[in-house]
Amino acid sequence: MNGKVFIVGAGPGDPELITVKALNLIKNADVLIYDRLVSKKLLEYCKSDCELIYVGKSPGKHEMEQEKINEMLVNKAMEGKTVVRLKGGDPYIFGRGEEECSYVIEKGILCEVVPGIPSFIGAAVYAGIPLTNRNISSSFSVITGKEAEEKKISNVKLEEIAKASNTIVILMGISTIKENLETIARVKGYDEKCAIVMNATTDSQRVFVGTIKEILDNYENLHLENPAIIIIGKIVNMRDKLWKKS
Amino acid sequence: MNGKVFIVGAGPGDPELITVKALNLIKNADVLIYDRLVSKKLLEYCKSDCELIYVGKSPGKHEMEQEKINEMLVNKAMEGKTVVRLKGGDPYIFGRGEEECSYVIEKGILCEVVPGIPSFIGAAVYAGIPLTNRNISSSFSVITGKEAEEKKISNVKLEEIAKASNTIVILMGISTIKENLETIARVKGYDEKCAIVMNATTDSQRVFVGTIKEILDNYENLHLENPAIIIIGKIVNMRDKLWKKS
Repeated sequence: MNGKVFIVGAGPGDPELITVKALNLIKNADVLIYDRLVSKKLLEYCKSDCELIYVGKSPGKHEMEQEKINEMLVNKAMEGKTVVRLKGGDPYIFGRGEEECSYVIEKGILCEVVPGIPSFIGAAVYAGIPLTNRNISSSFSVITGKEAEEKKISNVKLEEIAKASNTIVILMGISTIKENLETIARVKGYDEKCAIVMNATTDSQRVFVGTIKEILDNYENLHLENPAIIIIGKIVNMRDKLWKKS
Repeated sequence: MNGKVFIVGAGPGDPELITVKALNLIKNADVLIYDRLVSKKLLEYCKSDCELIYVGKSPGKHEMEQEKINEMLVNKAMEGKTVVRLKGGDPYIFGRGEEECSYVIEKGILCEVVPGIPSFIGAAVYAGIPLTNRNISSSFSVITGKEAEEKKISNVKLEEIAKASNTIVILMGISTIKENLETIARVKGYDEKCAIVMNATTDSQRVFVGTIKEILDNYENLHLENPAIIIIGKIVNMRDKLWKKS
């Protein structure tokens, strides 16, 4: 009899931000297939005979490896195993969970998806920057900075997003930070506030805050690296009054 | 000595979608102050002598009650209590968590915020509608339908959001569904797909899917009620291939 695949969000980084549901699935997994951004502490909850498979992707090698991951999910389930595919953040937010899930279902294997706290939600709370506020931010838009890099041509209409939304959130946006901030500044001005949250909710979280101009003048000295969340908007000013991870 | 306030996201509805961190805080709370959209099952984890205070708001009475809640958080903490303020979804996504947190900190009381899975993230996964996909949706925007209702004048530039974003998510959007869908249809067309997820991730979840035209023609017969998440965009078509809560 075939097993079942669970595509599970591990949350933004802090291992305590995993859901109760996800943790129970990890404890029962026969096979755990996990990404680079999943906290290693979560692996300690696996059964002693659970097969652990690391599939952290190196940049530029996505396509090939994604196919292999899809096949692995199906093959392990066909061996009758309970397979947990653990992904950083939420599987359906720039996580390719929907690609894996549709592949598995197409092959006739049972599949269930479990949401997780997306990285940008964790970043907002742990950095003390709400994405909404009655007086300052009635809307926010979320894009990935990676897309332009991979596709050469981007589908993201960033200038129009900047015109439409109070707050803009960019995931994985370090490699395209210069052009994206320039685009946003043309709409919102160079004095608009910007925060960069690296390694959000982990022990190595770092937050940089400044105007877009200040960030553009200094970003090359900040040693920025993904995973990072960039938040742009007046809401960044609320940070001074709110709890933030020390 | 003063106690401490924790402003905690309970997640979207399914009690198993609470985080491990939040559940531990509930177990240790001296006072638990909770909202209408928090699963009652979570209250069972409280200590036997925990003081439970329900502050579910009735529509139109927000302002007054919000002040009372703020004061209650501070007063209970000043009695030396560990206070958990449990909110549906995530505290910083249209949750007023930032208002409560800044009030508590201003009064000199320690306050920590714990993220939760936002209702729209849970709705997307449990309804089988990813908010992003490499080929279909590179951006999504999130607004609340309540704002227009409360403020009379809305800050949300919905027409511009519809032009800019592949996918639009509207929280608490039932009372304004007609005008909002008409606005979006003027940009994306009446054939654009729309999903309405009521009581997302709970046992009483219901999902309605159709073109904007079909929804506009029928919504009055569907007995729609908040809490509901409305998702508009081509991504809704992926639902047929994906796992969804039965």
